[in-house]
Amino acid sequence: MKIALDMMGGDRAPEATILGAVQAARDFGITVQLVGQPDVIQTELDKHQTDGLDLPIIPASEIIEMYDHPSAAVKSKKDSSMVVAIRLVKEGQSDAFVTAGNSGGALAAALFGLGRIKGIKRPALSTVFPSDSEHGCCLILDVGANTDVKAEYLQQFALMGYHYAQKVMSIPNPRVGLLSTGEEENKGSLLIKEATPLFKQSNLNFIGNLEGKDIPGGMADVVVTDGFTGNVYIKGAQGVALIIQKILEREIKARPMAMVGAFLARGALKALKAKLDYREFGGGPLLGVNGVVVVAHGRSDAYAIRNAIRVANKAAANKIVQAIEQGLNSG
Amino acid sequence: MKIALDMMGGDRAPEATILGAVQAARDFGITVQLVGQPDVIQTELDKHQTDGLDLPIIPASEIIEMYDHPSAAVKSKKDSSMVVAIRLVKEGQSDAFVTAGNSGGALAAALFGLGRIKGIKRPALSTVFPSDSEHGCCLILDVGANTDVKAEYLQQFALMGYHYAQKVMSIPNPRVGLLSTGEEENKGSLLIKEATPLFKQSNLNFIGNLEGKDIPGGMADVVVTDGFTGNVYIKGAQGVALIIQKILEREIKARPMAMVGAFLARGALKALKAKLDYREFGGGPLLGVNGVVVVAHGRSDAYAIRNAIRVANKAAANKIVQAIEQGLNSG
Repeated sequence: MKIALDMMGGDRAPEATILGAVQAARDFGITVQLVGQPDVIQTELDKHQTDGLDLPIIPASEIIEMYDHPSAAVKSKKDSSMVVAIRLVKEGQSDAFVTAGNSGGALAAALFGLGRIKGIKRPALSTVFPSDSEHGCCLILDVGANTDVKAEYLQQFALMGYHYAQKVMSIPNPRVGLLSTGEEENKGSLLIKEATPLFKQSNLNFIGNLEGKDIPGGMADVVVTDGFTGNVYIKGAQGVALIIQKILEREIKARPMAMVGAFLARGALKALKAKLDYREFGGGPLLGVNGVVVVAHGRSDAYAIRNAIRVANKAAANKIVQAIEQGLNSG
Repeated sequence: MKIALDMMGGDRAPEATILGAVQAARDFGITVQLVGQPDVIQTELDKHQTDGLDLPIIPASEIIEMYDHPSAAVKSKKDSSMVVAIRLVKEGQSDAFVTAGNSGGALAAALFGLGRIKGIKRPALSTVFPSDSEHGCCLILDVGANTDVKAEYLQQFALMGYHYAQKVMSIPNPRVGLLSTGEEENKGSLLIKEATPLFKQSNLNFIGNLEGKDIPGGMADVVVTDGFTGNVYIKGAQGVALIIQKILEREIKARPMAMVGAFLARGALKALKAKLDYREFGGGPLLGVNGVVVVAHGRSDAYAIRNAIRVANKAAANKIVQAIEQGLNSG
């Protein structure tokens, strides 16, 4: 298996991306193609022990920056790491593409370079969100690819999410929920009222409409929403978790006894952190494009990059694109 | 000042509502009109020491239940506590109405009974959300009254929220933000792209478009969104806070040393809980209707009810309805 990694994307590139690539190549025995500026990559690579690892450098001179306008950048920066890596996937020289860079850029590069799976109206960006379910997480989509959607798109997001959860997250019969303002069918926006019957008619395991609290509560394995709501939701959840941590640390530091207490409780605090750690989940797949693309968090460290490569590897090995194609044809 | 309290609404009615009313009458020296079934109210009232407090019982035989369809219930249950209490406000016999009952019912009762403030297109339900700002909280609206909105409604929500934050939350020049998927103006839904110029043209203190993380982060004092996104957002945030608490408790209980630690750190844990406690904020105002209506959380205990009455009292004393009217005319 060969995974093309964007060496130039992400807040901690190239240090974290290189280290993540080295770890992934070692831990999973796969080829990680390092796509980006060769001198930058070589300098970082020389810092690591890479004997026996397959880490070829694929030159790409340009970078799509976080502030770049996605589609304009993809069109003008033909030799950017994203565009070059997507070309590798298109040409069959890579099995998947992983980036921690500009997610809009990844979407645009994938749409231009790979196109959509036949029959898919819109690709969706997904994220794996920690939850209190048997599997410890759920897939939310869309979280930002489409801010304005139609009911039909939501139905396709459900199908793509269902197959991803099954093939890559190893959940036998994923429970699919539609995010709304209440479980009752008379609640929700006009869009939700139009989408709900489509979900009920589908042969997916639709468990009904959910509220915001049901996602961390672990009620569903796949949660479908539009890209505006999904994006606001996941950033809000991250913000809440962050602020809770910040306030707790502040209150503990203000009390000497509490500092001793926190030390004694450090195992529990660590376990909590691990359960909420986005790095464990390894980034979210961009579903609906004609190839495997995984978008890791912009703040990804080496461990998060390693896990995003793991996820991309599994998605390619389990042929997620073909699973979605077949799902479309049979549904 | 006379506040009409719905004695029959809320998960913990009538016990918690009575106690909250008694506390509010005592702490704020105001009249709390207890609207509901007289025998039920009297039985509860007899359990408390109420000498010198002004707690008249206003009979209302029916109840709008949590599962009732709001507008149908308001039309059919003319003698419900909500409909009767709203009539008191309409007739000038009460200065404000507080309920912990069906929020859709409160909206419908207020719309039918009080109507909208002249010029306001849609009323908005708001909530006070804990944040890491100077004031410790921000106002989010709409959180459920309107699942489908127009840019013009959002602009009016901003105006109503601005005046409420100023008059009732005592924030001199509230910072107003529009919830989106990024601060850049090219991000967000079509609705947001249409609303942003309207916000920029207004004479409110518009600080720009915000992301979900910026609300707990304390970036704004008033956050404007549609009722679908707002509802999903606040329920998601509550769910995340709840699950963090649940996982932490579970992990602590699994470790004897951590239990000792949690005991030593209990002051810090209590301080954190207080900062996140919805009860402190006393419910969210229903803005845009022609009268003061405050909707408390369905799970409100006596302290939350007391604080909702405090907020309603302040909103009435500071003439929030007139402030919004004047804001509309000058803006």
